[in-house]
Amino acid sequence: MTVSKRAAKATEESLHRIFTIPEAPDSTLGRIEQEMSQNLAGFLGAHIAAKEMALSEIERDFACSEIPEQPTFVSEHMHHLLNKLVAQSVHTSSPSFIGHMTSALPYFILPLSKLMVGLNQNLVKIETSKAFTPLERQVLGMMHRLVYRDNEAFYQQWMHSANHSLGAFCSGGTVANLTALWVARNNLLKANGDFKGVAREGLYQALKHYQYDGLAILVSSRGHYSLKKSADVLGIGQDSVIAIPTDANNKVDCQLLRAKCQELTEKNIRVLSIVGVAGTTETGNIDPLVEMAEIAQQYQCHFHVDAAWGGATLLSEKHRSLLKGIELADSVTIDAHKQMYVPMGAGLVVFKNPSSVAAIEHHAEYILRKGSKDLGSHTLEGSRPGMAMLVYASLHVISRPGYELLINQSIEKANYFADLIDQHPDFELVTKPELCLLTYRYNPAVVQSLLVSSDKKQQDQINVLLDKLTKFVQKRQRENGKSFVSRTRIEVQKYHGRKTLVFRVVLANPLTSKDILTDILAEQIELAQESRNVLPKLISLAS
Amino acid sequence: MTVSKRAAKATEESLHRIFTIPEAPDSTLGRIEQEMSQNLAGFLGAHIAAKEMALSEIERDFACSEIPEQPTFVSEHMHHLLNKLVAQSVHTSSPSFIGHMTSALPYFILPLSKLMVGLNQNLVKIETSKAFTPLERQVLGMMHRLVYRDNEAFYQQWMHSANHSLGAFCSGGTVANLTALWVARNNLLKANGDFKGVAREGLYQALKHYQYDGLAILVSSRGHYSLKKSADVLGIGQDSVIAIPTDANNKVDCQLLRAKCQELTEKNIRVLSIVGVAGTTETGNIDPLVEMAEIAQQYQCHFHVDAAWGGATLLSEKHRSLLKGIELADSVTIDAHKQMYVPMGAGLVVFKNPSSVAAIEHHAEYILRKGSKDLGSHTLEGSRPGMAMLVYASLHVISRPGYELLINQSIEKANYFADLIDQHPDFELVTKPELCLLTYRYNPAVVQSLLVSSDKKQQDQINVLLDKLTKFVQKRQRENGKSFVSRTRIEVQKYHGRKTLVFRVVLANPLTSKDILTDILAEQIELAQESRNVLPKLISLAS
Repeated sequence: MTVSKRAAKATEESLHRIFTIPEAPDSTLGRIEQEMSQNLAGFLGAHIAAKEMALSEIERDFACSEIPEQPTFVSEHMHHLLNKLVAQSVHTSSPSFIGHMTSALPYFILPLSKLMVGLNQNLVKIETSKAFTPLERQVLGMMHRLVYRDNEAFYQQWMHSANHSLGAFCSGGTVANLTALWVARNNLLKANGDFKGVAREGLYQALKHYQYDGLAILVSSRGHYSLKKSADVLGIGQDSVIAIPTDANNKVDCQLLRAKCQELTEKNIRVLSIVGVAGTTETGNIDPLVEMAEIAQQYQCHFHVDAAWGGATLLSEKHRSLLKGIELADSVTIDAHKQMYVPMGAGLVVFKNPSSVAAIEHHAEYILRKGSKDLGSHTLEGSRPGMAMLVYASLHVISRPGYELLINQSIEKANYFADLIDQHPDFELVTKPELCLLTYRYNPAVVQSLLVSSDKKQQDQINVLLDKLTKFVQKRQRENGKSFVSRTRIEVQKYHGRKTLVFRVVLANPLTSKDILTDILAEQIELAQESRNVLPKLISLAS
Repeated sequence: MTVSKRAAKATEESLHRIFTIPEAPDSTLGRIEQEMSQNLAGFLGAHIAAKEMALSEIERDFACSEIPEQPTFVSEHMHHLLNKLVAQSVHTSSPSFIGHMTSALPYFILPLSKLMVGLNQNLVKIETSKAFTPLERQVLGMMHRLVYRDNEAFYQQWMHSANHSLGAFCSGGTVANLTALWVARNNLLKANGDFKGVAREGLYQALKHYQYDGLAILVSSRGHYSLKKSADVLGIGQDSVIAIPTDANNKVDCQLLRAKCQELTEKNIRVLSIVGVAGTTETGNIDPLVEMAEIAQQYQCHFHVDAAWGGATLLSEKHRSLLKGIELADSVTIDAHKQMYVPMGAGLVVFKNPSSVAAIEHHAEYILRKGSKDLGSHTLEGSRPGMAMLVYASLHVISRPGYELLINQSIEKANYFADLIDQHPDFELVTKPELCLLTYRYNPAVVQSLLVSSDKKQQDQINVLLDKLTKFVQKRQRENGKSFVSRTRIEVQKYHGRKTLVFRVVLANPLTSKDILTDILAEQIELAQESRNVLPKLISLAS
């Protein structure tokens, strides 16, 4: 054998090995797995570096653009990943990281995910997913029933019907919202006479046929950015997403919404959809869905509810009334990877009418044959993993009352934290929790008094400084790595609608304790003192 | 304590447990994990039922639409999943299942997936993914370089640049193709004078502004159905996807393509994009990309290459020339979950020009702030898991030469199987492999002779019977569960372009042996004899 042939032979053997020989339990990867299985929190705590490294520094470890010409041993590569990647990842499940919408996962999810990967099903068609297809349909049925509460006969009739679908699984809320608006658009601009429908002829012909001067999607100014993205993708245009101002509680102002519908209609702009938000990303508030549904009814438009965050609240008998009116929506987005404690990649949308999805039906020769039950004929995505299994297992292991408890606890915790902030002289609660989200800022008592007695101009000056302080504290706290709150900029009514920087907190991690919350405030006070110019300037203004 | 309070307390404790107490190694889930870790093929072989159950029967196990009111113990639920779900799933990694594009996975992928889930990063923004963001950018850089082979300086300049992106990760090829066409549409119909661009004003205003009577996307008749879906979603309309006939080798006919471009241009229909296919889903053939690029250049339109399947061939020095011209494409789709042996959920698109993605840029207050390096500002999806880590690890552990070997072996195996079929008197090879895909059918020698001597009408009659036979054999083989080939319907030139049913085979599983291939043919011959009416009728026609 020549040298090169021998090398090729060696590569071939090592390749065969990685497909056939399992990782030994005492290999690096085997040990990592064991560590994770035995103590996930411990593993993450031990391997994720607390102190934040600058991104530019991390980038140096990911600078090579060439695909390696030499294979690396798995164990060697695992050391590399632990040192360079895991160490510099984000501890999303830490109970003191209360700024994310991702939180801790139940233990059983980890081995179950491994099973999902090992099975490597493709949900696009039955041929590559068999029982996963009815399972996904069942999960969609359960989530549909959670929202719409139709009777048993309804679900027996539609859940497994080939030409119907109670919803669509997708990678996340953005694709779910996009799917809902796609369905709405195609149903509004459907085939009619000579016109073959927007799905076939496109928007230009559709608007010409229906003689509209444009379309509009109406949502509160707290609506998620994915709606604008969807409007762009769908060819409707971002400017067609019209932001309706909210009231003091971050809920859409229905009077303004109605007036805007009327105004657009008079201008021959067709309202395609009104979108209610059930748990805004920034403040967690829920729109007045019943009234919105009435307006949608009046203007004969699609009513979509973006409950990506808040939808799981329906699992709580105690709090589900907060989402009253959601059952009137034509479509509802819910992210299982948020408050349902499933890993990233599990969004879904449910449709009130099982026939809605006919508007986006697709077929192909080799798959999705007409009359088949292939899920791919009604989804935006094609090939997709079997994430539905993780939702299914969670619904069974945690059960509805278990989820209720988790949801109720989160809301209680948010109220507790809100009280803590409210009662503290040097903090200002900016938005009260309706679900488990709230916003606040560090604002020394003397400055708060000054703000009350100031005119708008002076208030603005003070708020500019407070914004700086909030940003400083949030960044510094993140960099220190002990705890994390996020920050956002929201219009605050008492400051004449000024866009104000605030800490944003999401209290969904069941392991976040009251002590942790107390510590976070204490750390923020400390950090605020470290701001070299800002805090002294504020204090001097106030004295 | 009252009974209900006690019950609530118990639920609370059990909930706390699932978040804090690991699954014991001797629990059901622990044992499943061990079984999988030690012998994945054995685990799948033991738990997936060979004999297929009717879908209607499986559906009975997934019929309940109510979310459980009682929690189930994890171990109990795992038994349920093994019996009802895993048993009735599809053995996609079996070496004798050669009809899928998903195949076996290397062992290290399983624990690595568990690590990915445990870390639960969200790639939409740095705040929830930190080092995963530069890692994903690096993988996109590597894949970009694989396609475009730009120099080192190019990658150092653009790979980590905040306002640029060499591509986008996404859940699969459909979203990748959609993203590419979205970028193409927005760049073509960009802001101009008073017109603010299609992204903001939508397609109706865009076509009015640019005074086009429509848009068109041109692709061979073998193009993937996701292109029509994309055209629908993007508001261009499915009918705007124009299928150009292929030659005898399933490659687009460039003369017809050019003529169609000219015809459309004269009709004031703007060609938005020409799409080359590099590995058609049904036959694995590759379009003449160099010539297509020339035509795209001439008509000043976007040139996209859908290399979801074939893109990985670029890793083979021996075969990469098959994709010559791919470096001229403006965008290229590659699915890592196909020939890169990564689990379901890893598609990507790369863009020649790092500025292309500016056309789909999105920002929001709380994330994706301008100037940030958040990946979410250039992706269709929002929240996304850290799948890039699995591609990254595979590129390092397998390395370029390792992938080359896998690719080369697959192609050799396909050629071997093609010879086997060709030399067998009772089989008819319908399409020869260019990559590792081929199509064929069972067709007894006497019937083959008859076909040659028949006129078109008689050929059609025979082919109708042969279609029945192919369907019968394919279904029966699938139901028996020992092996699996898929089936599709393709136009066959020697039968005057008649859409003919064929077996479709994908030989990407490195563990598929020559013996398995021989056995599959033997089984098909046996099964054909079981067709009650069809085979005897064919034979009697021929004698």
